[in-house]
Amino acid sequence: METGFILNTFFLLVCGAMVMFMAAGFAMLEAGMVRSKSVAVILIKNISLYAIAGIMFYLIGYNLMFTDVDGGFFGTPMPWVGDDSLALSGDYSAGYASYAFWFFQMVFVATAASIVSGALAERIKLWPFMLFVAILTGLVYPITGSWVWGEGWLYQMGFSDFAGSTLVHSVGGWAALTGAIVLGARKGRFDKETGEAKPIVGSSLPQVTIGTFILWFGWFGFNGGSQLAISSVEDALAVAKIFANTNMAAAAGVITVLAVNQFTMKRIDVPMALNGALAGLVAITAGPLLPSLWLAMLIGAMGAGIMMLATAALEKFKIDDVVGAIPVHLAAGIWGTLAVVLSDPEASIVTQLIGVTSVGLFVSIISIGLWSAMKFSVGIRLHWTKEELGGDLSELGIRAYNFEFEETPSAHIVAAE
Amino acid sequence: METGFILNTFFLLVCGAMVMFMAAGFAMLEAGMVRSKSVAVILIKNISLYAIAGIMFYLIGYNLMFTDVDGGFFGTPMPWVGDDSLALSGDYSAGYASYAFWFFQMVFVATAASIVSGALAERIKLWPFMLFVAILTGLVYPITGSWVWGEGWLYQMGFSDFAGSTLVHSVGGWAALTGAIVLGARKGRFDKETGEAKPIVGSSLPQVTIGTFILWFGWFGFNGGSQLAISSVEDALAVAKIFANTNMAAAAGVITVLAVNQFTMKRIDVPMALNGALAGLVAITAGPLLPSLWLAMLIGAMGAGIMMLATAALEKFKIDDVVGAIPVHLAAGIWGTLAVVLSDPEASIVTQLIGVTSVGLFVSIISIGLWSAMKFSVGIRLHWTKEELGGDLSELGIRAYNFEFEETPSAHIVAAE
Amino acid sequence: METGFILNTFFLLVCGAMVMFMAAGFAMLEAGMVRSKSVAVILIKNISLYAIAGIMFYLIGYNLMFTDVDGGFFGTPMPWVGDDSLALSGDYSAGYASYAFWFFQMVFVATAASIVSGALAERIKLWPFMLFVAILTGLVYPITGSWVWGEGWLYQMGFSDFAGSTLVHSVGGWAALTGAIVLGARKGRFDKETGEAKPIVGSSLPQVTIGTFILWFGWFGFNGGSQLAISSVEDALAVAKIFANTNMAAAAGVITVLAVNQFTMKRIDVPMALNGALAGLVAITAGPLLPSLWLAMLIGAMGAGIMMLATAALEKFKIDDVVGAIPVHLAAGIWGTLAVVLSDPEASIVTQLIGVTSVGLFVSIISIGLWSAMKFSVGIRLHWTKEELGGDLSELGIRAYNFEFEETPSAHIVAAE
Repeated sequence: METGFILNTFFLLVCGAMVMFMAAGFAMLEAGMVRSKSVAVILIKNISLYAIAGIMFYLIGYNLMFTDVDGGFFGTPMPWVGDDSLALSGDYSAGYASYAFWFFQMVFVATAASIVSGALAERIKLWPFMLFVAILTGLVYPITGSWVWGEGWLYQMGFSDFAGSTLVHSVGGWAALTGAIVLGARKGRFDKETGEAKPIVGSSLPQVTIGTFILWFGWFGFNGGSQLAISSVEDALAVAKIFANTNMAAAAGVITVLAVNQFTMKRIDVPMALNGALAGLVAITAGPLLPSLWLAMLIGAMGAGIMMLATAALEKFKIDDVVGAIPVHLAAGIWGTLAVVLSDPEASIVTQLIGVTSVGLFVSIISIGLWSAMKFSVGIRLHWTKEELGGDLSELGIRAYNFEFEETPSAHIVAAE
Repeated sequence: METGFILNTFFLLVCGAMVMFMAAGFAMLEAGMVRSKSVAVILIKNISLYAIAGIMFYLIGYNLMFTDVDGGFFGTPMPWVGDDSLALSGDYSAGYASYAFWFFQMVFVATAASIVSGALAERIKLWPFMLFVAILTGLVYPITGSWVWGEGWLYQMGFSDFAGSTLVHSVGGWAALTGAIVLGARKGRFDKETGEAKPIVGSSLPQVTIGTFILWFGWFGFNGGSQLAISSVEDALAVAKIFANTNMAAAAGVITVLAVNQFTMKRIDVPMALNGALAGLVAITAGPLLPSLWLAMLIGAMGAGIMMLATAALEKFKIDDVVGAIPVHLAAGIWGTLAVVLSDPEASIVTQLIGVTSVGLFVSIISIGLWSAMKFSVGIRLHWTKEELGGDLSELGIRAYNFEFEETPSAHIVAAE
Repeated sequence: METGFILNTFFLLVCGAMVMFMAAGFAMLEAGMVRSKSVAVILIKNISLYAIAGIMFYLIGYNLMFTDVDGGFFGTPMPWVGDDSLALSGDYSAGYASYAFWFFQMVFVATAASIVSGALAERIKLWPFMLFVAILTGLVYPITGSWVWGEGWLYQMGFSDFAGSTLVHSVGGWAALTGAIVLGARKGRFDKETGEAKPIVGSSLPQVTIGTFILWFGWFGFNGGSQLAISSVEDALAVAKIFANTNMAAAAGVITVLAVNQFTMKRIDVPMALNGALAGLVAITAGPLLPSLWLAMLIGAMGAGIMMLATAALEKFKIDDVVGAIPVHLAAGIWGTLAVVLSDPEASIVTQLIGVTSVGLFVSIISIGLWSAMKFSVGIRLHWTKEELGGDLSELGIRAYNFEFEETPSAHIVAAE
């Protein structure tokens, strides 16, 4: 139906723009969590990865993910060409403009890449990171994506991941985890002798906060848009419920961290509370439609709790994740994928586990291979003198902040006009 | 009509997301207006209040505000359950998905709570504030909301408040005013001996500015979405006019402050000019549809003028409002509610005054009771040593900003690769 | 058609709000690029110019641009009055609500004005700048706008500028270039003796980055909304393609700067890379619909390359452009306008050149006249003592940043509660 085709296209574009804006959220969150000597590097990584993701998805990824997968393991790696000939000839069965779908899928790829940059911040070299992003967004993400959204083998098995707790967030999370292991922790993150974790405070909490709010805002587009249609009453009802559930999961994630913090250490950990919102959002992403608001809150709260446990586990294993990306995106992503069975009678916990495991194995093996290959060839880690100086000065020759104030004026200068 | 139902749902979700983003605006505005030692606390308050507001509105508020009010004083306090059965059975008389309406109403509650945090910043304890927010968003706001939007007694009288100059902004404003009185001013805000007001400058003007811009952006959703429909030509025309009027009121608010500042003190007060935009927005909120662009500008300009007078009055009465929330949301909110009679022939100044007064009395009495009860039990004010140290370190053990730069590199380190 | 009228109105309002948000993007970008002593001034300029633009466009500009141009050189300068009588009487031939179209056009005017503030930052006086903005948005922009979008003489000739590479970005760029010449460079920007350019680093790279991301986000509304309709399948397909092309041009702009930087100086220039995105966006703006994704990337990449050349040229001619507005908006804007012929067989390079040149001459001549008239009357440049002190203290008596931290608490204070 013509109006439906138009509505769906409009809807995907609005949601896609909201997801695109999440790139700004990741950039701000990460810039606020790193030390002031590593801010410029994380900013350039964030805008570059968004650009790279779009280009790689265009050149290879889209068709690798969506074309001729046919229940298999990947599609056809070749540049994408938009095709609206059906719609132009009056056949609206595609449901939306091909470019709108492409745009919406492209901003998702960028999200997966954004997850990696935060975890590995302050110590990874710029260009190896860029190369990894190109391969992640051009090959790795599209392949695992093809298994489900491209209607590959996992889709055939009945694996359910509505908006990507596994396909987006865990994929980014596995890439980040393997990278963090291969790369090692920042100097000073763990005591050399006792191995005890030593907190490294970030440069700017307001930036972390606006980043989190931007991500929360964008997530309505992320989950809501994944309905891919708003042209029927059923679709409109679904999108509305998804918005409500998405919000409640995040809210419950925040409250969970507040409560746990207060009971266990009588003090709120602000970055943890912000990550509570994000963990709630990641957790609800695999199945934001079917739960009641109540169950959505429970899923979000559990997501936040698991995020906190995973944070502690990472510290125990001396894995340094600058922004908590692995607990948020990987741990809560796995939980969210499994939690689908709580509301979807057609989902099977076994299939969900198979999906989580197979995606995890595939991404981890490829990622470890990539990180290691780069480590033993070009090198992936900043020289320790550069790390100590900070990537901003050592890699870019710039300071992110330059606050210089002249002396307070004497009154007569101000008075003069 | 099916397409209309879909359009309205889509419309409410887009507008609701824009209003949700206002939470980021409040957070940034407030973080920029407080001193650098109180930034982390205001950030955690802002994200927490948004989470609390959603949960309380779900658990109690929504049905208290909308269910079985029947011309009375409140509805039925019980958890909300979405019901789209009518639409699913082909009856689209509800006009939009119940979850979309819920989402849109929920983000409004959060806005009211955001107003309180700014005014009381830098001296109120974290948990008493959280408790107040829970009661405000679960009980107080829904009760006064039920009087009008729930079709209670004020609605029956013909009180007119389109998008909430009174029901949202004044409610937040009264809660803030009573809190500021019970709590007292920050140390150093007024000279101990002369009583003279001493300006306390905020930590970051760029944050105040982006906060203001985000609020301005979100306000299009706030006022436009309050039409609750875009499915008829009349609705579409109305929403478009609301967007235009909303913008012009804010623009006139800015210009008014610029002009008044320049004429009275030959110097622009930047935070005041930003508050001029917000005062204009608050003022037009009660009636953004009927005025001409010209009248909208007048209403916005007057709102800004009244905001400036109220700012001076607060200083005279030694009431400390860190961000100017009371002048912006309460003073301009009252003005805007009364100004409805300038364009709406069916509105009566007497009824508008009754509405403003009754809402003001109810919220003030409850709020004074709550603030006082907490003051004389758990205490609401930080110990003076903690206030002096700043809530960030004393309540959270964190600094919001950590700018540490290594020495400028000697050339040979940068050159080395 | 009724539903089409509604859809177009809704669409224009959403896109218009996104473009409005670009004002926040410009404010942040510029605040981050100036030194910390000039931040408050640039913030107040940005919110004021947005307010002034709206009011001037209402009072004079709109009708000057759109009413009774009839192939000529300007329309009728008089206040605008919305007219939806056709739609109210059931005739939907206008296509959208008049207020929606007004709103969308108004936010475009503000964009042009935003371009000027950045280039002239840190040395221009506040009020002369405001006066220039009023004339630019009330008279200059609407006149050149009338030549094309008001269906004036250039439109008759077949000049093609879809969303304003010339009409918005070059107009702002010419005003900025002439202003920068008349005003002269900041003290210390060029060595007094050798004339060599000396970099002046900005105060905050995170702000530049979030500003850039906000602009990129808003640009989807800027270019997409310029289709002015989404009510037919053709329109929906067009808008979707515009979103995709807009994104790819920006992505290619980023990558181009990365590559050129790395090859020429083995180091990425972060502000330049961010400007690469913007140059790509400006370049695709004149014709975002017809190119393939591939050609859009090429146009964006070339835009970024030309931006880099123009940056070098400005330095050579000792023209001081604080944020690179002239290379981004003027140079890439000219390129983008000419590049229309690459995809549009109906566009003529001669006509495009005539358009670029005539708009450039008109805006430059008027602007030089205005800047010079103000220079030799009220003066446009801050006294050198004020420039050295910074406009924040000397013009506004305020500091934009106030980071003051108390001593780290001794453990017993934190422990006490």
